Amino acid sequence: MKLLEDRIRKDGVVKEGDVLKVDSFLNHQIDIGLYEEIGKEFRKLFPDEDITKILTIEASGIGIACITARYFNVPVVFAKKTATVNIDGEVYSTRIDSFTHKRTYDVIVSKRFINEGDNILIIDDFLANGCAVSGLIEMVQSAGAKVAGVGIVIEKGQQSGGRLLRERGIHVESLAIIESMDAGTGEIIFREQQ
Amino acid sequence: MKLLEDRIRKDGVVKEGDVLKVDSFLNHQIDIGLYEEIGKEFRKLFPDEDITKILTIEASGIGIACITARYFNVPVVFAKKTATVNIDGEVYSTRIDSFTHKRTYDVIVSKRFINEGDNILIIDDFLANGCAVSGLIEMVQSAGAKVAGVGIVIEKGQQSGGRLLRERGIHVESLAIIESMDAGTGEIIFREQQ
Repeated sequence: MKLLEDRIRKDGVVKEGDVLKVDSFLNHQIDIGLYEEIGKEFRKLFPDEDITKILTIEASGIGIACITARYFNVPVVFAKKTATVNIDGEVYSTRIDSFTHKRTYDVIVSKRFINEGDNILIIDDFLANGCAVSGLIEMVQSAGAKVAGVGIVIEKGQQSGGRLLRERGIHVESLAIIESMDAGTGEIIFREQQ
Repeated sequence: MKLLEDRIRKDGVVKEGDVLKVDSFLNHQIDIGLYEEIGKEFRKLFPDEDITKILTIEASGIGIACITARYFNVPVVFAKKTATVNIDGEVYSTRIDSFTHKRTYDVIVSKRFINEGDNILIIDDFLANGCAVSGLIEMVQSAGAKVAGVGIVIEKGQQSGGRLLRERGIHVESLAIIESMDAGTGEIIFREQQ
């Protein structure tokens, strides 16, 4: 998605340790006009009319999922990183190692919100080692529901998450895939996509 | 907002300990059509054209803030509950006691995203003791920016947060204010609003 790649080149900041900061427009401050273009693009990439729900994970996936859901006309469910007193005992849970946060989370979704017969589009802002998405897929499958696909805003192509998911036959669409980036020069090279 | 009150009566669940579960449509599974009506209503209640940004706090505020921002045509900034390796040292921070999570959080916003001259609408899903909103106001004021107002989806009128904010002269608009609720019968009484 050229608009997104241009924006990453303009406002993204490459840091040591394979970190790309996009917090001025994507995941701390949010450009809603860009989110709308992202939502429209996901709709084009997943034209399947049978998607019943969008599943994401807190926190930065939520806004993208909500704006995207407008174009699919379906509810959003977001997985929560800690149990709260507002969640019943009846949950699907999984454990996720976060690359960004350098820690392990327990993640839960109420069993009431993923059901057999659901055809679920998973949306997230980043795909790196694929732990978060794999955890979400595991919860969808535990519910006997189907994964329609995985829509990612920025995939770190240098890490193995995207490749491993595609090898499992999951339909993964990433709006920008980083082939390489250089913290010294700030240069970012994107993978060519049709 | 009648649509919201009706939905809370229909799908909200009152639990012991002053807990109202609205996780089937507001803060775990999300009805995007309802969010759109909420966003339109906030636009009506804060017609001020000078709002420059919407500020919220992760996680359940984010989706509401993003959909609402479409009607104000401004960026969203969401305060983060823990420091991550992607955040610079240059942050405003505050400490918040969460009624829902029964714990204390450190909350941060990058100084790059709230500036002198900003006129900020604060949005959140719940207002109970007012700790989260007070923390956000403190950060806005630390930046020398103005608080245009506070838009809340559900205010727990039995708790003091809303009253204390209004006594300070803050323009608070809550789309539904709970006067009382009964975990035994499930009855919810809303405060009359014009």
